Amino acid sequence: MKIALAQLNYHIGNFDAITAKIIDAIDKARKNGADLVVFSELCISGYPARDFLEFREFIDLCEQSVQKIAAACTDMACIIGTPTPNIKRNKGGKELHNSAYFIANGKVQQVVNKALLPNYDVFDEYRYFEPETEFSVVEFKGRRIALTVCEDLWNTIENPLYITRPMDELIKQNPDVMINIAASPFAYNHDEERIQILTDNAKYYKLPLFYVNHVGAQTEIIFDGGSLVFDANGDLVDEMPYFEECIAYYTLNDDNTITPEQPTTKKEQRQSDIEQIYLGLILGIKDYFYKSGFTKATLGLSGGIDSAIVAALAVDALGAENVMGILLPSKFSTGHSVSDAEALVKNLGCKSETIAIKGVTDAFENALHTQFEGLPFSIAEENLQARSRAVILMAMCNKFGYILLNTSNKSEAAVGYGTLYGDMCGGISVLGDVYKTQVYQLARYINRDREIIPENTISKPPSAELRPDQKDTDSLPDYDTLDTILIEYIEHRRSSAEIIRMGYDEATVRRVIKLVNTAEHKRYQTPPILRVSPKAFGMGRRMPIVGKYLS
Amino acid sequence: MKIALAQLNYHIGNFDAITAKIIDAIDKARKNGADLVVFSELCISGYPARDFLEFREFIDLCEQSVQKIAAACTDMACIIGTPTPNIKRNKGGKELHNSAYFIANGKVQQVVNKALLPNYDVFDEYRYFEPETEFSVVEFKGRRIALTVCEDLWNTIENPLYITRPMDELIKQNPDVMINIAASPFAYNHDEERIQILTDNAKYYKLPLFYVNHVGAQTEIIFDGGSLVFDANGDLVDEMPYFEECIAYYTLNDDNTITPEQPTTKKEQRQSDIEQIYLGLILGIKDYFYKSGFTKATLGLSGGIDSAIVAALAVDALGAENVMGILLPSKFSTGHSVSDAEALVKNLGCKSETIAIKGVTDAFENALHTQFEGLPFSIAEENLQARSRAVILMAMCNKFGYILLNTSNKSEAAVGYGTLYGDMCGGISVLGDVYKTQVYQLARYINRDREIIPENTISKPPSAELRPDQKDTDSLPDYDTLDTILIEYIEHRRSSAEIIRMGYDEATVRRVIKLVNTAEHKRYQTPPILRVSPKAFGMGRRMPIVGKYLS
Repeated sequence: MKIALAQLNYHIGNFDAITAKIIDAIDKARKNGADLVVFSELCISGYPARDFLEFREFIDLCEQSVQKIAAACTDMACIIGTPTPNIKRNKGGKELHNSAYFIANGKVQQVVNKALLPNYDVFDEYRYFEPETEFSVVEFKGRRIALTVCEDLWNTIENPLYITRPMDELIKQNPDVMINIAASPFAYNHDEERIQILTDNAKYYKLPLFYVNHVGAQTEIIFDGGSLVFDANGDLVDEMPYFEECIAYYTLNDDNTITPEQPTTKKEQRQSDIEQIYLGLILGIKDYFYKSGFTKATLGLSGGIDSAIVAALAVDALGAENVMGILLPSKFSTGHSVSDAEALVKNLGCKSETIAIKGVTDAFENALHTQFEGLPFSIAEENLQARSRAVILMAMCNKFGYILLNTSNKSEAAVGYGTLYGDMCGGISVLGDVYKTQVYQLARYINRDREIIPENTISKPPSAELRPDQKDTDSLPDYDTLDTILIEYIEHRRSSAEIIRMGYDEATVRRVIKLVNTAEHKRYQTPPILRVSPKAFGMGRRMPIVGKYLS
Repeated sequence: MKIALAQLNYHIGNFDAITAKIIDAIDKARKNGADLVVFSELCISGYPARDFLEFREFIDLCEQSVQKIAAACTDMACIIGTPTPNIKRNKGGKELHNSAYFIANGKVQQVVNKALLPNYDVFDEYRYFEPETEFSVVEFKGRRIALTVCEDLWNTIENPLYITRPMDELIKQNPDVMINIAASPFAYNHDEERIQILTDNAKYYKLPLFYVNHVGAQTEIIFDGGSLVFDANGDLVDEMPYFEECIAYYTLNDDNTITPEQPTTKKEQRQSDIEQIYLGLILGIKDYFYKSGFTKATLGLSGGIDSAIVAALAVDALGAENVMGILLPSKFSTGHSVSDAEALVKNLGCKSETIAIKGVTDAFENALHTQFEGLPFSIAEENLQARSRAVILMAMCNKFGYILLNTSNKSEAAVGYGTLYGDMCGGISVLGDVYKTQVYQLARYINRDREIIPENTISKPPSAELRPDQKDTDSLPDYDTLDTILIEYIEHRRSSAEIIRMGYDEATVRRVIKLVNTAEHKRYQTPPILRVSPKAFGMGRRMPIVGKYLS
């Protein structure tokens, strides 16, 4: 049996485009002699469709797409993922299932519903879907397929998140092969975990396993593809490319061995975390613009490393001709800020403008003269500068149709080292899930062949330049220390006491964690953040704003 | 048996304050001769504690509070709600249960776990909690208590959201009485629904029912109290007050009838929706400030109705001495804008400042002169005004420690009729869940005894005053029509096609719904919105940003 795995990029709710793309892949697979083409989880709606799923019309439109696809799927079979009405709804439960349709000869032949519904981090599946409790293999061309949806293979033995395991039921029906359709988002350490868990499944159930993942970004959530094929020994037969669409073909032989049609390139070593983050962010920017119908980006260039990296990523994602860097010097900007930003613009070949903000900040101070008279320079005046810049950047967006790229990194977003409605503005946050220490690694990666990020931007001490001679380290620990504490608190959910026991300075730990918790109100209002780690700010981390617990 | 119901206001994660408050209530109840005092769901942690629940230390702190409370609960019993570790975790499932502890004679005697976990709208309980599958009554003083947690009584017969019903198991154990502890948030139509569902339970199971709800606001979610007591016929014995703390006492007689200790005031008629919204918003503002440790509010006063209502609510919640209204006239502000705002300040007795923005907007236009030269006045210049105001308001906040109150209403938030980083700024949105037509009703309610909102503010046509002679109706349908369409789309999740079939103009419906969907990116960055309806923007409504589906 020849099986095609279609790892494609879908746009949530864009039914015409999705249907056309799937039918096109079916046609290609048919021409290539495939018996079965497998698409990813909820490909019909796109993932995550969130509360669109609560509209009956949306579900009807999914069903209409399915019917068009079924009609096009003659002389062969396909597996697609789609939300379907819960037909036992009269006995109670959620309105929908997260389903896999097995389609053959122009008709839906069988429906398989997801049993294990992820409801952690960015996932909200139990918000919409009723878990399945009954399981049947799919028979096709004399083979018995154990078809499951994503998380149904993820209930690990060591730390089971669910009290059931669908494959334990399916294995009783003597399947020949496992097929799993997934929408498994990218995080820089997720690829190895995914391979391990699927290897464990193939070994444990002693069956070949075909796994098809989404690729493409849906606002903040990036899907990295990397679909996988294992033989019945749990050995990896093929690893499809990451961060790009691909259709690949495999023959499942009569002895249950697998022959890939294309030569598979055995990876010498895995992509580094930083290379993955780079590729993920490029895809994230590209899809955010493409799927929202925009082409041109702007951002403020401070001469610092964060804005330089965002500019470089934007140029790689959108083309230099679509990126406008805006220099917004103030009276506190040092000479190198401007010259470093100018060197960056030259290296990138993007467009730029320089708009001085002194006239504007003077006008604000003048307007507030009566109220502020006699009071010392404070955070109010610092923020006036950051907000004046934001107003100018947004005016450029409104006038010329740019999307403003936010340049805050995860370290500063964590401790609230940024100005709400100032440098925290933007349509999408590019680095909001990238710690400052990783930002420096990204700079080295981007400069791997030639200098793009100016060397002085990398080597000078970071500064917000909102008052004379300001340095980030005036108010924050050095970034190596800061990031380590942040990772323990945010990613590992360790308390202050636990982190202190690990050997960190107590006062520093308590100060950092207090900063993180008291900045929740700021982060609530920030743009969506491209997610590249297992725990990004935004939908995947939901904290009370007026809560008192400070760890 | 004398039962006390303690309807109290908790601050999430403020363990010392919560523990002290509960022990104080136990002491009071003991002095009053109560055998049992019942607190609300998850009172130990506060509700919703969200991802604080993922910190082991947080759960340990809950358990420490429980031990202190147990030690204080001698010679009597209490029921409290707390998150507890799932002791069967080695068999799989979530880390925690949402539990009710039955405490007597200084010790936890029994643990009851919630089975039906709400995971819709603002609720995310399946994110943290494993559902219970086994049920036992609690025996106390010869009575058998069917103790359940909130949603466990909400699986209605007609439209069951779950496939099990815990009371169907408990009733087999011949209980004498039902006790339900809840954290059921306010929505203006929710009180009647709550009474109906609980009446149905009492009638169906033929048992008296004691129901204890939270009161108080946790950022955007407002709990309205209104705890309830029913006899075994399903007749309402007592309805505790709304929007305030209260401890009330009832004797459960040997014949299972109930005698309230206090005279109960049978309500002649229910509070109007608008009165409830008014009281809910007051509580929401008060608790947002109190629980975040702030006392002083500021807001821009445009002379329009939205800012006038927010100012009036803030004065009622925080006191006139803690409210600073700031008039920010521009060259497009009409004379009545200033005089109406001044009249409001006089009526409210709050503080005010006037800060003209012309110098600032001129400075922006001057800074952007090169870029904007020769281009017509557009939304860029309109937004410059709104954003200049926001920068000034935030500067006042930063200098003097105010929290900025957002004044956008739900109608304009819905269609994106507002400026991001401009009038969409603020620490908390007061009217973001109140449609414009309801804002007018609030004005009439606030003016019920004397004119507080100036009559001219109510009667003049609404305008953003960002260009000469601008009216809201230049770009939007009249608010009666707009709000009706919005309610169908947002609250009832009807598609364009369905709304058009109801008789609305097709072009208007399509335009409105397109506006709603294309404003998702703006709403993503707005402050938390005090929730007063069954479907507020924010955590309870999760929509894709780059999704294509437009209904």
